[in-house]
Amino acid sequence: MDFQNNQTGFSDRATEYKARVEQVIVNFVRKKKLQGRLGDAVSYAIATDGKRIRPLIVYATAELLGVPTAIADHPAAAIELVHIYSLVHDDLPAMDDDDLRRGEPTVHKQFDEATGILVGDALLTFAFELLAESGVEPSVIVEWVRLLSRAAGASGMVAGQSTDLEGETCALSLGSLEQMHRQKSGALIEASLSMIASEAVVATTGNGGVEAARLEGFGHHIGLAFQIRDDLLDVEGTTEQIGKPQGSDAASNKSTFVSLLGLESARNRMQQELSAAQQQLAYFGEQAEGLGWIADYIVSRSK
Amino acid sequence: MDFQNNQTGFSDRATEYKARVEQVIVNFVRKKKLQGRLGDAVSYAIATDGKRIRPLIVYATAELLGVPTAIADHPAAAIELVHIYSLVHDDLPAMDDDDLRRGEPTVHKQFDEATGILVGDALLTFAFELLAESGVEPSVIVEWVRLLSRAAGASGMVAGQSTDLEGETCALSLGSLEQMHRQKSGALIEASLSMIASEAVVATTGNGGVEAARLEGFGHHIGLAFQIRDDLLDVEGTTEQIGKPQGSDAASNKSTFVSLLGLESARNRMQQELSAAQQQLAYFGEQAEGLGWIADYIVSRSK
Repeated sequence: MDFQNNQTGFSDRATEYKARVEQVIVNFVRKKKLQGRLGDAVSYAIATDGKRIRPLIVYATAELLGVPTAIADHPAAAIELVHIYSLVHDDLPAMDDDDLRRGEPTVHKQFDEATGILVGDALLTFAFELLAESGVEPSVIVEWVRLLSRAAGASGMVAGQSTDLEGETCALSLGSLEQMHRQKSGALIEASLSMIASEAVVATTGNGGVEAARLEGFGHHIGLAFQIRDDLLDVEGTTEQIGKPQGSDAASNKSTFVSLLGLESARNRMQQELSAAQQQLAYFGEQAEGLGWIADYIVSRSK
Repeated sequence: MDFQNNQTGFSDRATEYKARVEQVIVNFVRKKKLQGRLGDAVSYAIATDGKRIRPLIVYATAELLGVPTAIADHPAAAIELVHIYSLVHDDLPAMDDDDLRRGEPTVHKQFDEATGILVGDALLTFAFELLAESGVEPSVIVEWVRLLSRAAGASGMVAGQSTDLEGETCALSLGSLEQMHRQKSGALIEASLSMIASEAVVATTGNGGVEAARLEGFGHHIGLAFQIRDDLLDVEGTTEQIGKPQGSDAASNKSTFVSLLGLESARNRMQQELSAAQQQLAYFGEQAEGLGWIADYIVSRSK
């Protein structure tokens, strides 16, 4: 099934892409025939509802560059597996100590803490196994593993998580907060673009030009807008909408865009990031419909 | 530097290989310029003394099959990174709750629990990044990522760790104990052979025949012998030798080869596994000197 040439708007295709990547992940895990408590907990973790923003970025970038949907499935699923693992570890008592995720008990609450650690380890490892088994050109797989490991690891997401934890005991400057989020959530968002837009990938699988710098700029700005929206929702959203206690950032004295800038300036800053992101897309015209839709969704979402 | 053609015994080469893989890991991490608490903790974890058995198996298999040492460096270092990550997570309070590792404070004792979780995540991710950046044939890298992720993940090492934790609350049968160890430590030991002996790797980089079934059999038997030796050392070794409290298995009512078979039968079983491993090697003659040395070392080591 290829959605790229049909006449629906990206809003409809987003619903289909979301279901699609969830199926890719479920099928991959099912083939592994996991057993016991670990198997149950892995199934529980991947079944947790999510926005699947990163896979949507992967598919929208594939639309833009003419990369077949069936190829985009692999980075979409691998990035989402990394994202889910990071949430499972982030929720652990020694980290953010969250009991709820999207209104459901977190993995370590539903099972136990050791299982929470092991599920995260398993999902992270699955991400690379899924890429290695994707059956596409080896040079493409190697590029994917390189981009994903860099974004996920100690120079990317894990570094951001570590800075975030340190920040809970000392206030961060605005510059440090941006740098932290650029690593913690920005790196994986940027990888969602680069795993498709990388020259090695497009040369083998796509038909569009790369224009990597524009897409990198787009990723940078929507990554920041995404995080500011998160910080705004923690103040403006309801507990039911955001699936965790409203006001938990303020309660834990965390540095956020709202705590550093105030509500009004944080909103303005988010709009500026949205405009900057849209500016990067303008060059591509209608082909970038999907990425434009995602940018709008990121700043208007209520969860 | 290539050690394969010199005239020393493997005992001397083992010392050089151990230093070599440690340098490969340190150089890789240093290039990443990690910062802050996470950077310090990653450096601390990789500096912890270790036997480096898995890298030695990689190098000895490379000697056997004529794969250049410079190629073997990559799987040797990647497997050891996965092994180190598994120890860091295994030591966490929610898992085995160990304060000491080789006589030094474990990562979460030296730093904090969140850092222990993140260091493990970082090292696991580094393993794949290191392979992706190795610069060898893409088809070889993809095979390495596939073999390593399968061995390390929820069908291999992580599954074994999960069963091990469940086993602490209920006694395991001998069959389940063997299955658990085959996953928990055997999978990574077998990967140390297969990441060199895989047909795709030897076809591109080596000059020897593969004989994968014999090497797989060898890996299976030394994996079991390794674990039985561990269980014996917990009873026979001193706290100083083994770097953690002697008798800790018995104290925690863990099922071990000694608790299920008794001391004498456990020793006999280990010797049987050694003989079976040696039988698999006989076919290769002198070329298998290194693997033979490792098998002897595994059953005679005092730590």
